[in-house]
Amino acid sequence: MNARDWWVDEDVLESIAIGAGILGTGGGGNPYNGKLQVRHLIEQHGPVRIVVPDAVPDAAVVVSVGGMGAPTVSIERIPRGDESVVALRALERFQGRQADYLVPGEIGGSNSMRPMSVSLLTGLPVIDGDAMGRAFPELQMDTFSIYGVPVAPAALADPHHNAVVWQRVMDPLTLERQARAVTIQMGGSAGFAFPMMSGAELKRTVIPMTMTFARQIGDVVRDARRMHRDPVAEVASQCGGQVLFEGKIVDVERRMSAGFARGALMLDGLADYRSQRMTIDFQNENLIARLDGEVVAIVPDLICLVDRDTAAPVTTEVLRYGLRVAVLGIPAPAILKTPIALQAVGPAAFGYDDAYVPLSGTYGGDLLASQPGS
Amino acid sequence: MNARDWWVDEDVLESIAIGAGILGTGGGGNPYNGKLQVRHLIEQHGPVRIVVPDAVPDAAVVVSVGGMGAPTVSIERIPRGDESVVALRALERFQGRQADYLVPGEIGGSNSMRPMSVSLLTGLPVIDGDAMGRAFPELQMDTFSIYGVPVAPAALADPHHNAVVWQRVMDPLTLERQARAVTIQMGGSAGFAFPMMSGAELKRTVIPMTMTFARQIGDVVRDARRMHRDPVAEVASQCGGQVLFEGKIVDVERRMSAGFARGALMLDGLADYRSQRMTIDFQNENLIARLDGEVVAIVPDLICLVDRDTAAPVTTEVLRYGLRVAVLGIPAPAILKTPIALQAVGPAAFGYDDAYVPLSGTYGGDLLASQPGS
Repeated sequence: MNARDWWVDEDVLESIAIGAGILGTGGGGNPYNGKLQVRHLIEQHGPVRIVVPDAVPDAAVVVSVGGMGAPTVSIERIPRGDESVVALRALERFQGRQADYLVPGEIGGSNSMRPMSVSLLTGLPVIDGDAMGRAFPELQMDTFSIYGVPVAPAALADPHHNAVVWQRVMDPLTLERQARAVTIQMGGSAGFAFPMMSGAELKRTVIPMTMTFARQIGDVVRDARRMHRDPVAEVASQCGGQVLFEGKIVDVERRMSAGFARGALMLDGLADYRSQRMTIDFQNENLIARLDGEVVAIVPDLICLVDRDTAAPVTTEVLRYGLRVAVLGIPAPAILKTPIALQAVGPAAFGYDDAYVPLSGTYGGDLLASQPGS
Repeated sequence: MNARDWWVDEDVLESIAIGAGILGTGGGGNPYNGKLQVRHLIEQHGPVRIVVPDAVPDAAVVVSVGGMGAPTVSIERIPRGDESVVALRALERFQGRQADYLVPGEIGGSNSMRPMSVSLLTGLPVIDGDAMGRAFPELQMDTFSIYGVPVAPAALADPHHNAVVWQRVMDPLTLERQARAVTIQMGGSAGFAFPMMSGAELKRTVIPMTMTFARQIGDVVRDARRMHRDPVAEVASQCGGQVLFEGKIVDVERRMSAGFARGALMLDGLADYRSQRMTIDFQNENLIARLDGEVVAIVPDLICLVDRDTAAPVTTEVLRYGLRVAVLGIPAPAILKTPIALQAVGPAAFGYDDAYVPLSGTYGGDLLASQPGS
């Protein structure tokens, strides 16, 4: 135990789910099912212990756990929750080492919830941080692998407890392709455990305090709703971002392709944006937003759709004609904007010729700036 | 060492390659590249030791090794040969046990050669037997898994030494699907190592003496060629089979689908078969032969295309208009004709409604009957 540890109870969980949904940038899976699962486990086992990265010893063993697959699938095929525990145990058995800490691979979407489920099933605490600061569609798009933590061994498991361990992979993209292929064979969703790293590696590569950030975003939204203020405006201003657009969804083009939900949506402007039009391309996550044809935000910056009135996150799989949404732009964490990171998560990694033009501001804004240890 | 051990030198290798090619029933991959690799290794390390199953202690550790993928791919992308060694080492490391013996998973085609390569690279002897008595397109179609040897753990590796271990799979078909998906991601061919079994399990489930059978088929063909007798007729009569047809290939329909070479060929009759027509469906291997529309041979019985003059095996990937071939029918080993085996390798397993009507005769015929220990 550490004086800066904090705990996730049912109330804190509500805030994290809202924040993680917004940070999911449309993908990462709706945290709703995962939240119900964690809540159920909290009722049985008590709150989840969260540990700030600074407090982790260099020699500790840290494992990232989460779910892999297209969010469209996991809506209909609810993960049992223990797939990732099976994957974790397979990895531990293979490596002959027990994990001391869990860390989310991505704070955005349902993978913010999965480590807490695994925590409550195993007793291991969860690190306050992640490797994306948002959600991304492919597993090599994370700061652990971008900054040199070996991806292998890596484990994948499914609800039938089929468990696969990659002993050696030549590069993260190879793991992405092979694990994605197995995930599809596993029915479209699976639990993963990788990488297994030292506390020193974690502290060098993690994006710190993102569990805190998600919680605070949720707190801002809930407070504003309670006080009848505008939650969209408050989130945008406090998290370092801006409102890019407000509009009504008038078209959604969507297809499943190679295990991803790909497509684009079109918005007709409302209020200040009347007579303007925004299009957003997505591959699970929102990747590029164009206002009347001009790029106004592009990956790795966060393009977040929220309900225009309540600021509830709007994920890719629930997009439909007529929804009235606000589009938030939040600058990516600095660690995702380095030249080496942009190779993995910049526009070109998604097939766009457009240059990366960063949004102004700082990831986390006032919310994270006020945090000790950030 | 055992008095009944025998050795594969360069001359014996030639015979095995011919026999294994014929037993490949069109699939299993042309043994040619594998043969060159084994010959090269024999030059460096000496002959390969072959051990009859009876001589294996019950407690010995036996591992099946081979290659997975569509033969069409491995023609153009020659396996390095050590993929299966990498897979074997991954499996040994995972299980914490060293292999004592290697066993071919399928005697038909290139997988007859791979265990000999691995033998020469590791010093482990090869069992005189296999789990198919021929070739089959899917890895769960083998007597090890049909008769209850657990398929997991199972290992797969590629030329870049990417190595994947399945720790647990719910059934062999699950492994087939997931391993096939990874093989496609690995570029279409991979080396495997599984199952790891005891000597007792081996002796209960293996089809014995099939290395000997392949060698003898090759000897018959080579002797007949040398003596200017008819190799096709001699093979058919001595191996327990029959000549089903002689004809000219007039049409080949072929497609790659889910990692398999699927299709059909059409033959116009020659000599005694003039004015008759045979069609043969294949999925890597030849599955069903129809003479003027009537089924005359069907899986699991062996439907083998050979050159009409030389009895050289004609594999699926070299089928082309104008080839003059004989079609041999060889009865499947009895262990493949039980009700439980027919569920895995009978007509229905390949999507055919046709009943299994066995060819008359005995797998191996005079050749195996004359063998001590068979």
